[in-house]
Amino acid sequence: MTTPRPYRLLCLTQRLEELDLDALLVTDEINVRYLSGFTGDSSYLLVAPSGVTMLSDGRYEAQLATQCPGLECRIRPPSQPLHDLTCDALCSLQLPGGGRKVGLEADQLSLSMYRLLEQRCRGIELVPTSGIVERLRMIKDEAEIETIRAAVRIAERAYLSVLPLLTPDWTERQLAHQLEANMRNLGAEGCSFAPIVAAGAAGALPHYQPSESAIGDSPTLLIDWGAKLNGYASDLTRTLHRSPVQPSFAHAYQAVLEAQLAAIETIGPGVAASEVDRVARQVLKRAGLDQAFKHGLGHGVGLRIHESPRMSSISEETLASGMVITVEPGVYFDGQFGIRIEDDVLVTDTGRQVLSSLPKGLDDCRLIL
Amino acid sequence: MTTPRPYRLLCLTQRLEELDLDALLVTDEINVRYLSGFTGDSSYLLVAPSGVTMLSDGRYEAQLATQCPGLECRIRPPSQPLHDLTCDALCSLQLPGGGRKVGLEADQLSLSMYRLLEQRCRGIELVPTSGIVERLRMIKDEAEIETIRAAVRIAERAYLSVLPLLTPDWTERQLAHQLEANMRNLGAEGCSFAPIVAAGAAGALPHYQPSESAIGDSPTLLIDWGAKLNGYASDLTRTLHRSPVQPSFAHAYQAVLEAQLAAIETIGPGVAASEVDRVARQVLKRAGLDQAFKHGLGHGVGLRIHESPRMSSISEETLASGMVITVEPGVYFDGQFGIRIEDDVLVTDTGRQVLSSLPKGLDDCRLIL
Repeated sequence: MTTPRPYRLLCLTQRLEELDLDALLVTDEINVRYLSGFTGDSSYLLVAPSGVTMLSDGRYEAQLATQCPGLECRIRPPSQPLHDLTCDALCSLQLPGGGRKVGLEADQLSLSMYRLLEQRCRGIELVPTSGIVERLRMIKDEAEIETIRAAVRIAERAYLSVLPLLTPDWTERQLAHQLEANMRNLGAEGCSFAPIVAAGAAGALPHYQPSESAIGDSPTLLIDWGAKLNGYASDLTRTLHRSPVQPSFAHAYQAVLEAQLAAIETIGPGVAASEVDRVARQVLKRAGLDQAFKHGLGHGVGLRIHESPRMSSISEETLASGMVITVEPGVYFDGQFGIRIEDDVLVTDTGRQVLSSLPKGLDDCRLIL
Repeated sequence: MTTPRPYRLLCLTQRLEELDLDALLVTDEINVRYLSGFTGDSSYLLVAPSGVTMLSDGRYEAQLATQCPGLECRIRPPSQPLHDLTCDALCSLQLPGGGRKVGLEADQLSLSMYRLLEQRCRGIELVPTSGIVERLRMIKDEAEIETIRAAVRIAERAYLSVLPLLTPDWTERQLAHQLEANMRNLGAEGCSFAPIVAAGAAGALPHYQPSESAIGDSPTLLIDWGAKLNGYASDLTRTLHRSPVQPSFAHAYQAVLEAQLAAIETIGPGVAASEVDRVARQVLKRAGLDQAFKHGLGHGVGLRIHESPRMSSISEETLASGMVITVEPGVYFDGQFGIRIEDDVLVTDTGRQVLSSLPKGLDDCRLIL
C-alpha cells in the first residue's frame, strides 16, 4: 500500500513529540519534497502538530497549487527575504501549551540563516537537530520502492543497449553520455549522478571522471551509473574485462563477487549495517584483498543518491524492512585496475530482494569491442 | 594576461588583512576550486598569510597532486571526520602576533559543522563572514573570460544546430536533451543548468521544467539554456514565435528587446547595477509592461550560474571592468505567453562587450517547424 504524504507528516509530528519539539522548520529541499510533494527550491516547510505551512515565493504559486493542493502556503513578495518570512511564520506559530521549541535542520541550514533567525525570533528556542526527516526517508513505502525498481530497470536497459555499440574508438565520456541519453529515452530525468566510466588503471581511482580517452585496448572497464526517475535514484556498477583475462584480475574479481554475494545473503531486518560490511570485508580478507577495499560497503538510496543507512564498519544503523541499500564492495590497485560490483537491494520482512538483475559472473562480464 | 592562482590567493590575504582576520576557512566547493584549481569535493582550504593548506581525504590524493602541485595537503584517514581534521589544522595554525581570528564562510557552512568547530576549537575566535571570495570571483581574469566566451559559443552553436531539426512532434524535453547532447559534442561538460524549454503558455512560468508535451502548434517557444565548460557557465535565452505573429506578442517582444538593448547600452565600469535594471524597467513602463516584468534584470555568471553582482533594483553593487553579467528582461502573461531575451555581457574598461551574438530581432526569431 502506498503511504500518502499526510501519513509521512503524521509520523513526523509523532517523532517531534518524542523529541519534545513543538515544531520543525524543514529547510532541506529534498526533505521538503518528501513531506509535501513540492519539487521547487527556495522554500521551507514549517511542520507543527497544529498545521503545516509552506513558505515560498510568487514564482512557485502555480506549481504549489498543482503539487500541494490544500497545503497552507505563505507567499513572500520579491522585496521580502525568505528568512524574514520564516521569522514571521515562526513568531506567529500557535503552539499548544505556549510551547516555543522549534527544531532546525542543522546539517543543512547555513550559519548565516541561523544567525538571522536567532536575531529576529527572540522568545523562540531554536534547537539544532540532525536526521529527523532522513530517518523517516530510510523506510520506503510501496510507491517509492516501485519507482526505485523502475529506475533500476531503466539503468539496466540503458546499459544493455549501449554495450553492443562500443568500439575501441569510443571515449569514456561518450559512453557516459550515451548511457544518459538512453536513460532519458527510457523516461528518466537523466543520471542519478555523474557516471564513472573508467578504462584500465583509471578504475583504481574511486572518484574518477570520464575523460576524452578512448577505451582502446584497455583490459578492463569499470562503469558506475544510475538513473533518476521522478526524483528517485538507482545506482549500479559493473566491471568488464577483455579476453584473455589476467589471472590477478580474475582472482580479485571472483573475490569481490563472492564478497558481494555473501554480504547480500546477510541482509535482513534486524541485522546491523556494520555486520553486512564485516561479512564482505571478511571474504576479501581471506583472499588477501581487504587492504584494497578502501571504502564502505554501500549506502541507502532514494531521493538522494547517498542517504541513510550508511553501510560501513562504523555504521550504527540496523536494517529494517523497506530500506533500499547498495551493496558495492570494490578493490583498487594503483596503476593497474579497479573492480567494483554494485547492486541495489531491498530489505524485506523476511530477508532481502535484489532489485537489479544484470549478470555479474566473470564470464558474463567479458567486453567485446 | 592570465592571473594565476597565487595572485588570487594574494588578493585574498590582502582582503583578510583589511578585514582584520588572521585566516579564512574556505568551505564552499566553488571557492575552493577558484583558489586552488581542485575540482573535487569534501575538502576545505585554510588560507592564512603564513600559508595555504588543503584539508582532504585519501580518495583525492592523486587528483590533488595533479591539480594542485606544490600545495600543502593534510589528508585525513577514513576514520577521521573532516571537522576533526579541520579543528586540528585550526588549532595548529601559526598566526603572526598570536592572532586567532579565523573567518568562516557563513553562507555555506552548516550550523552542525559550525557547532562542531566551536566546541573543539576553543581559544580561536570563529568569525562568520559573507561573500569574501565571491567578491574576488566577480572580476574575471582573461583566462576566465576566454572560457566563458567559449561556453557562450558552444551554447550558440548547439542552438543553431538543433533549430533546423525541430518538428511539431518534438517534445520540450527532447529539445532540452538535444541541446545538451550538442553542447557535449562541442566539448562542454554539459548544461550549466537544467534548460527551460517552454511552449506557449508554459513560457509564462519563470521556473518551468521541460515536459513531455509536444511543441505542436504552440504560437511561441521560450528557450533558456547554457553550456558548462571547464566549470564556467554561459546563460542565454531566446523566445521564438510562429507566423502569423499575434499583435500582443509583437508589441511585448519589441518592448522587451528595446529594454534589453537600452540596458546593455547603459553598462560600463562605475555604473550602479540597479541603474541598469532601472533603465530596462523604464522602457517596459513606457510600453505599459513593467508590471509583467516580475524578476531582476540579471546576475553575474562564472563558476556558478548565478553569482554576484546581482542586477536588480535593490542591488548595491557597482559594475567594474572584468565582470560578466546576464541581461535578461522578461514579461509574463498567465495563460498566454512569456518573453525573455538574454545575453551575456562583459564589462570592459571603456564600456561593455556583448559576448553572445545570436540574432534577436522579431523577424529573426520566427520558428519554422
